[in-house]
Amino acid sequence: MPFTQNEIERRQNLIRSNLNEDQAFIAFSFTGAYYLSGAPIVHWGRPAICVVPKSDPAFYVVSAMETPRLASLGHIKDTADYQDYQGPSLDCALDQLVTRLNSMGIKSAMVDGSMAPFSTVQKLNDRCPDMEITDASSVLNSARLILSDEEIAYVRAAVDVSDVGVGTFLEGARIGVAESTLAARSSQAMADFAAQHYPEIETHIRCYSQQGLRTLEPHSGTGGQPLEEGQLLQIVIEASAWHYLSAVERTIALGELPAKHNAYFTTLVEAHEAAIEQVKPGAKCSAPHNAADEIFVRDGFGASPVGTGLQRGVVSEWEGRIPEGDLRPYNDETLKSGMAITVEPFTYVEGVGATRHCDMVLVTDNGRERLSKSPAGWLEISK
Amino acid sequence: MPFTQNEIERRQNLIRSNLNEDQAFIAFSFTGAYYLSGAPIVHWGRPAICVVPKSDPAFYVVSAMETPRLASLGHIKDTADYQDYQGPSLDCALDQLVTRLNSMGIKSAMVDGSMAPFSTVQKLNDRCPDMEITDASSVLNSARLILSDEEIAYVRAAVDVSDVGVGTFLEGARIGVAESTLAARSSQAMADFAAQHYPEIETHIRCYSQQGLRTLEPHSGTGGQPLEEGQLLQIVIEASAWHYLSAVERTIALGELPAKHNAYFTTLVEAHEAAIEQVKPGAKCSAPHNAADEIFVRDGFGASPVGTGLQRGVVSEWEGRIPEGDLRPYNDETLKSGMAITVEPFTYVEGVGATRHCDMVLVTDNGRERLSKSPAGWLEISK
Repeated sequence: MPFTQNEIERRQNLIRSNLNEDQAFIAFSFTGAYYLSGAPIVHWGRPAICVVPKSDPAFYVVSAMETPRLASLGHIKDTADYQDYQGPSLDCALDQLVTRLNSMGIKSAMVDGSMAPFSTVQKLNDRCPDMEITDASSVLNSARLILSDEEIAYVRAAVDVSDVGVGTFLEGARIGVAESTLAARSSQAMADFAAQHYPEIETHIRCYSQQGLRTLEPHSGTGGQPLEEGQLLQIVIEASAWHYLSAVERTIALGELPAKHNAYFTTLVEAHEAAIEQVKPGAKCSAPHNAADEIFVRDGFGASPVGTGLQRGVVSEWEGRIPEGDLRPYNDETLKSGMAITVEPFTYVEGVGATRHCDMVLVTDNGRERLSKSPAGWLEISK
Repeated sequence: MPFTQNEIERRQNLIRSNLNEDQAFIAFSFTGAYYLSGAPIVHWGRPAICVVPKSDPAFYVVSAMETPRLASLGHIKDTADYQDYQGPSLDCALDQLVTRLNSMGIKSAMVDGSMAPFSTVQKLNDRCPDMEITDASSVLNSARLILSDEEIAYVRAAVDVSDVGVGTFLEGARIGVAESTLAARSSQAMADFAAQHYPEIETHIRCYSQQGLRTLEPHSGTGGQPLEEGQLLQIVIEASAWHYLSAVERTIALGELPAKHNAYFTTLVEAHEAAIEQVKPGAKCSAPHNAADEIFVRDGFGASPVGTGLQRGVVSEWEGRIPEGDLRPYNDETLKSGMAITVEPFTYVEGVGATRHCDMVLVTDNGRERLSKSPAGWLEISK
């Protein structure tokens, strides 16, 4: 099981402390239901709903197909299940949910509205017109922001796997070798490492790279282009352990660089270190961004329009991002011990691209711990 | 670009035919906005909203970070963008959206409520209390259900890649070889094939396998276990081309099987073929399921509690499933030419597991085309 019973109770009690007597927190999303149950049930169109009432034990509404996984991974014994043959999955799930809520006398519900689909909440409302439904995403987010030791262990595992990917990529990179070849080798090395060192953890791996102006399309993946002299290369490694996501990214100089590329990379290295220096408990979430921006501005690249990082943990490109933890200039929220964030300042430079170093940093009681051990600073590949 | 201008106009006009004069369709989801723009912008916490008004050109509200990707992939010229530094991304996006809607005199909005987050729609409602907001997921779904030739081309590409994965897995499979090794080899072969044959398409690949009772946890991924004699092995290959997802899955006998395993696999092969035979225009979505069930029941395995397949296209484990197209016993919707579905009947057998063959089948004007060319029927690996 990914988590101990104590850890799951800790989370549920954190949420319960925000509830009134006849109230429940209903997590409709993967992220919310996983957080509250310890069982990562990916939906695939079959809702998996975790309910934490104030005064009763938590229960799970789930497809019968997933009950073996729930039993082997989670800490919730009480389930109400439904099956494919009975009708559309959402309707079946809501019918089970409403029956339970009514039998428990639940009159008011907090929901994870930033991730729950609109139709789902609307259909709950149609079935229970007298129930007060409140979007309590902020309650869930403020709990999720601070990771426990058990959660941090998975972030560490994910970073370990990522570091293997960066190392393998750097080792094999030569001018003329195709990016897709390097990405495939790194992925293989990470998979082997994860299988050997963390056989009991479900890991997911993504590795891609981009060169030059292609970095202006940051979420588009690797092409088959050979590494080309005179460009900045961006390596992106995202690995997750039980869905706890890390990111380690590196900028690499490919052979001799034009002056402007050279200047940006030099500035970037300094901005990256300056941003990491700002990570400590009590600092504002804006501090790392502002520190990097000072250097970008000083060196003539202007203030960066892009944020400098985000809270990691259970997050993916689809779900789970916590805006309250974004490292952005307007964000006055405080960094706290137990937050695990990526620090990845960068900006757009005409003719050069938008490359960055990205490290996983844990806020500790006394300061910070840089979780990623990959070489940083100025990295280069000669011909 | 993934799609022609004509194709995107066709889709927008399909949606427009459901709108009134001062109305717009607002797609908040990745899937909806991709469908209506042709540009696959994965959010990563930054909303990308595509709006199709009845009488004005479509426009996109998008992070400035994604505008190069939008320009290179999509057919929408009119964008309203926002940047990270300005504030929380959802608020910034909604501010841009509302400004535009107001300037166009939009008084009523249809939304993709089955995928849009509850908070997002609620915040739109807070900003525009007089605007009538309707969940029009069914409008979007009925358009998405029927794939155009351009869309079918990507499903075919994804299936081609999947077939390479199945072939590589079958070729390398021997008793004693670790599942993770086979999965990694297949993934590598698929990546190479995709890079060589479809260099201009963004592909994603997933390959895993499971043996015996582990198939009872269908969405959990591969372990490092060696193939073990006397079990049924399940291979799952999911490949997507520009996010058009296919699945090809196979059950394989590992050496000599116990009688019960043998009996189930024999029945499964017949049920799979019988289900595929039912795919034709005008048949009900329930027909393939019922045909397979008849065989499961006849042979003493009982009616299957699980559906027999689903509409493919832009769908993932996170988003995009269309319940109206599920192959389930209660579903009286009609199969139509242009639907691309997986046919994958199976059931749970005590002591054996829950394995299946899964093929991609296209409904054609005259019947069906089986898109996957991987060997089906009885498959086995000797010692």
